[in-house]
Amino acid sequence: VSSEQRVRVGLGDRSYDIWIGPGLLPRLGELAAEAVPAGRLFVVAHPRLERLHGAALLASLEPRLGGVLHVPAGERFKTLHRAERLYDELLALGADRTSVIVAFGGGVIGDLAGFVAATYMRGLAFIQVPTTLLAQVDASVGGKVAVDHPKAKNLVGAFHQPRLVVADTEVLRTLSGRDYRAGLAEVVKHGAIADADLFAWIESSQQVLERRDPEAVAHAVRRSCEIKADVVARDERESGLRAILNFGHTVGHALESLTGYTTLRHGEAVAIGMAAAARLSERLGLCEPGIAARLEAVLAGLRLPIRIAGLRADDIIAAARSDKKAVGGALRLVLLRRLGEVEVVAGAPEEEIRRVLISLGAVE
Amino acid sequence: VSSEQRVRVGLGDRSYDIWIGPGLLPRLGELAAEAVPAGRLFVVAHPRLERLHGAALLASLEPRLGGVLHVPAGERFKTLHRAERLYDELLALGADRTSVIVAFGGGVIGDLAGFVAATYMRGLAFIQVPTTLLAQVDASVGGKVAVDHPKAKNLVGAFHQPRLVVADTEVLRTLSGRDYRAGLAEVVKHGAIADADLFAWIESSQQVLERRDPEAVAHAVRRSCEIKADVVARDERESGLRAILNFGHTVGHALESLTGYTTLRHGEAVAIGMAAAARLSERLGLCEPGIAARLEAVLAGLRLPIRIAGLRADDIIAAARSDKKAVGGALRLVLLRRLGEVEVVAGAPEEEIRRVLISLGAVE
Repeated sequence: VSSEQRVRVGLGDRSYDIWIGPGLLPRLGELAAEAVPAGRLFVVAHPRLERLHGAALLASLEPRLGGVLHVPAGERFKTLHRAERLYDELLALGADRTSVIVAFGGGVIGDLAGFVAATYMRGLAFIQVPTTLLAQVDASVGGKVAVDHPKAKNLVGAFHQPRLVVADTEVLRTLSGRDYRAGLAEVVKHGAIADADLFAWIESSQQVLERRDPEAVAHAVRRSCEIKADVVARDERESGLRAILNFGHTVGHALESLTGYTTLRHGEAVAIGMAAAARLSERLGLCEPGIAARLEAVLAGLRLPIRIAGLRADDIIAAARSDKKAVGGALRLVLLRRLGEVEVVAGAPEEEIRRVLISLGAVE
Repeated sequence: VSSEQRVRVGLGDRSYDIWIGPGLLPRLGELAAEAVPAGRLFVVAHPRLERLHGAALLASLEPRLGGVLHVPAGERFKTLHRAERLYDELLALGADRTSVIVAFGGGVIGDLAGFVAATYMRGLAFIQVPTTLLAQVDASVGGKVAVDHPKAKNLVGAFHQPRLVVADTEVLRTLSGRDYRAGLAEVVKHGAIADADLFAWIESSQQVLERRDPEAVAHAVRRSCEIKADVVARDERESGLRAILNFGHTVGHALESLTGYTTLRHGEAVAIGMAAAARLSERLGLCEPGIAARLEAVLAGLRLPIRIAGLRADDIIAAARSDKKAVGGALRLVLLRRLGEVEVVAGAPEEEIRRVLISLGAVE
């Protein structure tokens, strides 16, 4: 476990640094001054988080602070309507083209504030301060920003790279156990798709991860960011390779959609989706037997769900087909060749998918 | 006057062609097949235009046509609310990431459909078929797309380059005289900021331009696109040079804003704004005396307004200050050094600006 704190996302003139470690919030002003030297800073945050951790952050930004904009927590506020309110507030506060949006929160705040940053006056500089494990290991890398449409998650969005990401791992201490574990699902995913060593490290680190050991958490975040940054650098706009990051997400999104985005955390849905993808990979002979069991053991050890309860297999398949990543209604699944290596498979036999879903508890 | 029909906008991997000339609409399908070989095409148009010119266009797109989406004409429909309706319709029609948005209309349709293309599923390919002179010489080059905010025009937007622009000059025959002349104002602007030869050609071509001679119109469109493409290629995201395209626009936008965007056409407001900028350039000794008179003579010859009626000079200055191009409330004006050359001037004395506005008829 190294103590290196900085991960560089290499995207040419859109490259940026992700700082990772405990105690970074009070240094945000200094890091921001380096990444975006000029312009007033407008912080988008939700009130609870601001109460818990905002003082140090706001104090460090004080000389450049243009205002704090509040957004309630929860996916249901990630809407165009809420973006519109932020436009109103920014305009009233006098935000101009040189202004900088600072997203202080989890994935919802990052996505929403990022979309506003991407579109206000055709694009403002954007700084992400992710405060959930999920946002630190996933949402804050790659520049995907969006709001939801009543009928489709993340339907309206953009690619808008941040100029700086600051992931203070100390903030994760106030995260609920369930949210923390849901974030670990994406760490498992990064191991499964690209790094057998990371995967093995998770297998042997369940206890330190469970008690949020600062070094273990920082390592998990850093390796995740490195892996995702590497994929994103090679495919910024998701035209090919980047699809491997969707391992577990095709079925995962379908489960979230069918349960109205309220029953399952995103990471929980992805855990079940990864179990399904692993079982399917074995059934299709893409990987050796035993891989699925190993993946499921890690997920269960982290107390993540791997069973589908009360949903029909056919409904899950239909929901997966209507996902925006499906092209012309054809399912494209990310499947395992071994731990640390995946491939994108189009046209897997639907009957095999059904059987896998049923084996995980889906209704026939 | 050359017959060359194609202007290349050089933006690296976002480069694209602008086709210019009469009779291009029936060839749109073929040109689209070259620029964006795959994906269904969704045409955004307004009903009147579709009635007048839609048959040839839709027939040529038929094999790939995914649907036609209607938007009423008029700036008041360039809203986030209207964009939301387009998202709904696209989703209902099954538009996916491979789909292509075709904007068939003037600047409003281009801006709105372009904003939807920039944001639907984080960005679809976009083809512009501008049908007004203003859109052909200006809005369709450069990738600026946006919707209006109740308090600020084009507040919410993006840079989203089209993959192809097809400017059929025959369509301009059905344009109202007033709209046609408003478009000529931007042609004058392109001459004034970058090409003394174009400016002189306009001076000597008022009659052929007035009767919409096809060769003259095609020449005006082509030179305008070449000049704008050259500026945009050197400054895609408006960080410097591109500001010169705002010649006449600081005062112009202020006039539009103060008159509620209903009294003046955009080109008319820009004509008055150019007269103001030219007079100010002379007053400040930036250019030789006589330049403003020459510019005003051309504008008047094209029956464009150059007088401000019924507005207070101070109100115009205040409105200009709140424009989103103003940075920290400081006015940045594009002023003439000579015909064909401009510079951006920050901090011109406000008293001089007032005097110029009053000399053009503004109330003291």
